[in-house]
Amino acid sequence: MTRLAIVGFGHIGASIAKAVHADHEIIAIDHDEEVLRKARDRGLAGETSSDLAACRNADTVLLSVPVRTCVTLLEEVLSHMDPAALLLDVASTKGILLAEFHRLAPPVRYVSLHPLAGTERPGIDSANPEIFRGMPFLVLPVQNADEDAHAQVDRMIAACGGRKIQIGSVKEHDAALAVTIHLPHVLACALTHLAEESSQTLSTDIFDLAGRSFRDSTRVASSDIRMVHDFLSTNTGDTAAAIDRLVDHLGRIKKLLVAGNDEELKSLMNAAQKLRGRL
Amino acid sequence: MTRLAIVGFGHIGASIAKAVHADHEIIAIDHDEEVLRKARDRGLAGETSSDLAACRNADTVLLSVPVRTCVTLLEEVLSHMDPAALLLDVASTKGILLAEFHRLAPPVRYVSLHPLAGTERPGIDSANPEIFRGMPFLVLPVQNADEDAHAQVDRMIAACGGRKIQIGSVKEHDAALAVTIHLPHVLACALTHLAEESSQTLSTDIFDLAGRSFRDSTRVASSDIRMVHDFLSTNTGDTAAAIDRLVDHLGRIKKLLVAGNDEELKSLMNAAQKLRGRL
Repeated sequence: MTRLAIVGFGHIGASIAKAVHADHEIIAIDHDEEVLRKARDRGLAGETSSDLAACRNADTVLLSVPVRTCVTLLEEVLSHMDPAALLLDVASTKGILLAEFHRLAPPVRYVSLHPLAGTERPGIDSANPEIFRGMPFLVLPVQNADEDAHAQVDRMIAACGGRKIQIGSVKEHDAALAVTIHLPHVLACALTHLAEESSQTLSTDIFDLAGRSFRDSTRVASSDIRMVHDFLSTNTGDTAAAIDRLVDHLGRIKKLLVAGNDEELKSLMNAAQKLRGRL
Repeated sequence: MTRLAIVGFGHIGASIAKAVHADHEIIAIDHDEEVLRKARDRGLAGETSSDLAACRNADTVLLSVPVRTCVTLLEEVLSHMDPAALLLDVASTKGILLAEFHRLAPPVRYVSLHPLAGTERPGIDSANPEIFRGMPFLVLPVQNADEDAHAQVDRMIAACGGRKIQIGSVKEHDAALAVTIHLPHVLACALTHLAEESSQTLSTDIFDLAGRSFRDSTRVASSDIRMVHDFLSTNTGDTAAAIDRLVDHLGRIKKLLVAGNDEELKSLMNAAQKLRGRL
């Protein structure tokens, strides 16, 4: 049985523990004693510790803390790890973490993961392995990713019910995620503030006039601020570029609207409808 | 029993028919004979017709066609209506329809409605009264809205399970909906096209890298094009203004990101989180 240390036993860490506990001995590591107590009480971990030194007993160490915290903890985690062990992370952005890893140049095997299964409810109390079912599980081999490492990652993704997707490079990961995850969070924030601003000129509370489209487009404004800030602030270049490009697209649509160019507007909408169908 | 003529027996019209058929005699009017056959076969209407003249037998006439079609049909519908009858519509934008109504200056009572219960699946086959449950049902009294008219509207909304919300003016309706409905549709279109554009520079299909946030933010790109084009193209001024203001908000967020102004960024996100909680 693989001995898996999960560093950070929050929503994602605890959900993965629930998904894989059948064939993994889990070591829960968290700075919060209350979280560790819950992990024990709920049978999510055979061993718990608030000390990163507990990583020394693991075949695999999974970093499941915000990316900035991954960077902060990395050197200490590596100092405890068996050089033959496998390092995994589930950070939302990869650039700064992989840069730090390469700077430290440790001997361990490393596969970087990213399950696209966020939720606006953080913490161990909302841990639920079903959040991964059918969702993309991005896989970016970083160093010495041998057959055994890949087999282990595959077993973990299978236990989660995720869809494995290989990513070409860290650059590609962060650029793509800027569009598919980070920008939607920026949009939700902007749209919510715009609605509030508009409310001030109306006799009705505009939040009473929201249908499903507004609800869905702003859902992630309810996300955990620390998590969102973490990925936005570690991917500012790509996110800023995505904002600029979206503004271009908005300008193009506005131009068609104002000009009454119905044919081109409809053709743009038709194309979007077809593209959305690919999801 | 109220004799209710529903002009346009599509998704919304047929869903309302299902919700209110217990205490309404329904006359389904549609240009599509196949739709009328389904309305009869499914017991959704006691009488069906492809002729607007069937409105003459109704106590209440509900226009449930796209807003441009409402405008086109309005004069003929009114020509058949009993002057004491009640006119209702469920159009997505109100400006051009009410302007046409006031131009024609007919004697009928008129209350304009807008159930915020759209869906990306159009047509009678997806008719479902549950789409209205708990959703806002906007009410804008236009002319001679007496006690009887209000009582009838209230009964209808209650049968649908909607939440009645009085709107101050047509101007207010269209400005608010530009933010809460029309802009989210524009954003979904823009975001989908941006993703496609980004795909071209990546080795992975970016649509494979979409999590729930992208899914939710682009859901309405799958909406019926005719319906979306209908409301966008009849509310271009307000929608263009909403785009401009959203672009301002995006610029503000981008500036904070690029400057690494974490405190202000978090404070903006905190405020958005609280505002979103009002939904």
